[in-house]
Amino acid sequence: MSAVVAEKTTTLREGAFGNATNLACRECGHQVELGPFYACPECFGPLEVAYEFGEVTREQIEAGPANIWRYKALLPVPTDIEQSPNTEPGYTRLLRAHNLGAELGIANLWVKDDSTNPTNSFKDRVVACALSAARELGAKVFACPSTGNLANAVAAAGARAGIKTVVFIPSNLEHPKQVNSAVFTESLVAVNGNYDDVNKLASEIAGEEEGWAFVNVNVRPFYAEGSKTLGYEIAEQLGWRLPDQIVIPVASGSQLTKVHKAFQELIKLGLVEDKPYRVFGAQAAGCSPVSVAYKAGVDAIRPVKPDTIAKSLAIGNPADGIYVLDICRETGGAVEDVTDDEVRDGIVLLARTEGIFTETAGGTTVAVLKKLVETGQLDTDLETVVINTGHGLKTLDAVSGKVGPAATIEPTYAAFAATGLA
Amino acid sequence: MSAVVAEKTTTLREGAFGNATNLACRECGHQVELGPFYACPECFGPLEVAYEFGEVTREQIEAGPANIWRYKALLPVPTDIEQSPNTEPGYTRLLRAHNLGAELGIANLWVKDDSTNPTNSFKDRVVACALSAARELGAKVFACPSTGNLANAVAAAGARAGIKTVVFIPSNLEHPKQVNSAVFTESLVAVNGNYDDVNKLASEIAGEEEGWAFVNVNVRPFYAEGSKTLGYEIAEQLGWRLPDQIVIPVASGSQLTKVHKAFQELIKLGLVEDKPYRVFGAQAAGCSPVSVAYKAGVDAIRPVKPDTIAKSLAIGNPADGIYVLDICRETGGAVEDVTDDEVRDGIVLLARTEGIFTETAGGTTVAVLKKLVETGQLDTDLETVVINTGHGLKTLDAVSGKVGPAATIEPTYAAFAATGLA
Ligand SMILES: Cc1ncc(COP(=O)(O)O)c(C=O)c1O
Ligand SMILES: Cc1ncc(COP(=O)(O)O)c(C=O)c1O
Ligand SMILES: [Zn+2]
Ligand SMILES: [Zn+2]
Repeated sequence: MSAVVAEKTTTLREGAFGNATNLACRECGHQVELGPFYACPECFGPLEVAYEFGEVTREQIEAGPANIWRYKALLPVPTDIEQSPNTEPGYTRLLRAHNLGAELGIANLWVKDDSTNPTNSFKDRVVACALSAARELGAKVFACPSTGNLANAVAAAGARAGIKTVVFIPSNLEHPKQVNSAVFTESLVAVNGNYDDVNKLASEIAGEEEGWAFVNVNVRPFYAEGSKTLGYEIAEQLGWRLPDQIVIPVASGSQLTKVHKAFQELIKLGLVEDKPYRVFGAQAAGCSPVSVAYKAGVDAIRPVKPDTIAKSLAIGNPADGIYVLDICRETGGAVEDVTDDEVRDGIVLLARTEGIFTETAGGTTVAVLKKLVETGQLDTDLETVVINTGHGLKTLDAVSGKVGPAATIEPTYAAFAATGLA
Repeated sequence: MSAVVAEKTTTLREGAFGNATNLACRECGHQVELGPFYACPECFGPLEVAYEFGEVTREQIEAGPANIWRYKALLPVPTDIEQSPNTEPGYTRLLRAHNLGAELGIANLWVKDDSTNPTNSFKDRVVACALSAARELGAKVFACPSTGNLANAVAAAGARAGIKTVVFIPSNLEHPKQVNSAVFTESLVAVNGNYDDVNKLASEIAGEEEGWAFVNVNVRPFYAEGSKTLGYEIAEQLGWRLPDQIVIPVASGSQLTKVHKAFQELIKLGLVEDKPYRVFGAQAAGCSPVSVAYKAGVDAIRPVKPDTIAKSLAIGNPADGIYVLDICRETGGAVEDVTDDEVRDGIVLLARTEGIFTETAGGTTVAVLKKLVETGQLDTDLETVVINTGHGLKTLDAVSGKVGPAATIEPTYAAFAATGLA
């Protein structure tokens, strides 16, 4: 994509990236102009979007639409972003979870439910930001490697925006996630390999093809900012207040780092009061490189070959894993992991207590929440938020052996009475 | 339930049903007190909730939450409804559908997308109202017969509210809809028969058991009011304006009649300008009793035995069918039906143009929209809204033979280049 971009950066329209001013290296601070760049030319560290926000008020935000664009002043998007066809994700429910809290012994618990996004995961948020960047940079193809949810979000957003999509998934991906991409795009590509293989292929293609915006590769800095909106919404929905503790699933680790970044921005902008909060990361034991490093007390992440039913979290070589470690350690949180059986139990627990059907990623997060309580790592007296990032209809097989009809009967009252369910 | 109720109606708390004053017979106007009554004691006509609204302003509504409770003054619910655990449905996206409009030749088209509700169909709206009624009436069991989506919504809402649920479905129901109920409730009952058989059984049980609130049987008048919120939202999201034409799927016919009722209420309250609008009903050819009556120009609906992939619309003996006929005729609309193949094409068409994955009910509605254009029954110059009521992940089989990966490759650039997808 670099050729397209060298040309495009000179013709970027005024305000194409809103209040964003440049890209900055997370490691050495080196600055780069806004464009499809993701690695620091000095040290190869990851690039992140930097801003000059000016004044942003609660009232401005509250007057905005019931989707992520209410926070457009805090995102790398133009002020007319609502006019460009997009999936209008976000502003999902923050539910007080009395029943789950009672079950786990947590006094004050909330679930942020991102399963009701347009394609039923938090990925619609990041993709909406990547789409804006792709559009402003003049990309002609909108693409991604994906563990599934991202594929759904990219294919849908591209269809709606009228831009060609090419979407790469591991060939053993859950069937619902395959159909939920293929229905939107003619160019779904199944790759024999795991996510890390698919990701490597995507980087190769990004280097070869011109005009391709790979949402989580060459426009990753813009993409990743979308996850900040989860943090903004939680704070706003709590009445412009930060929670004391938050539990977040970790695949690449991007979401967790961005929720933390969002909280920090809100504090700096004076939109919430400064206060300590603890960030917890959740992984599946079958793919827990960050949790393993956390528990070993080391700084380096050793890549693993994933083997878990939580396929959406199955990133064995997580790009932002080291930042997850930093944040969880600095804030007094932790990173924990749970077995596949605990993941399944977590799905049913959330469904039976709060009426939310989550996918394996959410089952992981709820199960980790439970384990954090049981191991005394989480303070059950503090206000706690757990994020549900995806939908159970996409990973149906995880629980279809566990739950089902209690009885199959003939259509008569006598037959019903005999079931003992009355 | 009548025993519980005779007792309960005397102890109903003040304002249990908000601005609702009584139940009124749709046929003869006879009035009945608010309670779990659904058939007129005089003529057996269906009872409907009547109100004295007083003043309701746009500002009041706009200051409310981003869910159906922003319209609580127009619903049979108490003013403190937000305090009772519920799924907080509604305020879903109204998307301008440029691509679909261009494809069909409709200048000004919108999709109201109810697939992003808590359990991914419009049924969360009606169930939230039924739950409030059940709670106020002191019901101890929350139940329903269902074509699938209602089962999901009842099981989830009951779990969150902490009330026992018993849910009845046809035993041949789509697998995703079964799991999506069973995950929430221990008492999912599969019945050998079609929906009309299940419905009959439910009425029988409602007569036998005490304290059971069957959402679409003995608390149906309260339940049905929930669909009005679709109409309110469309008008508010258009900027407090009614559309010229609207296309709505028809199973029992309740939703269509309630959207019309909502528009009429908004006019009477002065919240929108009075203007003509045309209402269109959508059915699948394999279960089209209302469409058949419409085309034959008769007033009576002849029940049918359903045979269609649009199982959520497979009600062969629709309770509100005659009112659908009245409304579509009076407003200058129509009722149309489409084949199962057209339903499948409708699903893919909506996905490829707008990035929305709908279930067979939405495929039916989009396909009917297309047919209404082709047959000249819809005016393509007028502003038109089409309602998507459910989610494609629940009826995956409808399209899983039609769409899929374009290629399966090894993880190399050469393998990708050979696909010709670049
Ligand atoms: C449902 C779900 N939750 C959480 C994550 C983790 O996201 P991240 O890669 O930002 O850590 C993913 C990533 O694919 C996901 O699909
Ligand atoms: C997805 C969906 N759309 C539409 C309908 C039609 O609703 P009604 O019975 O109100 O006509 C149903 C009913 O089950 C449904 O599940
Ligand atoms: Zn650097
Ligand atoms: Zn009557």
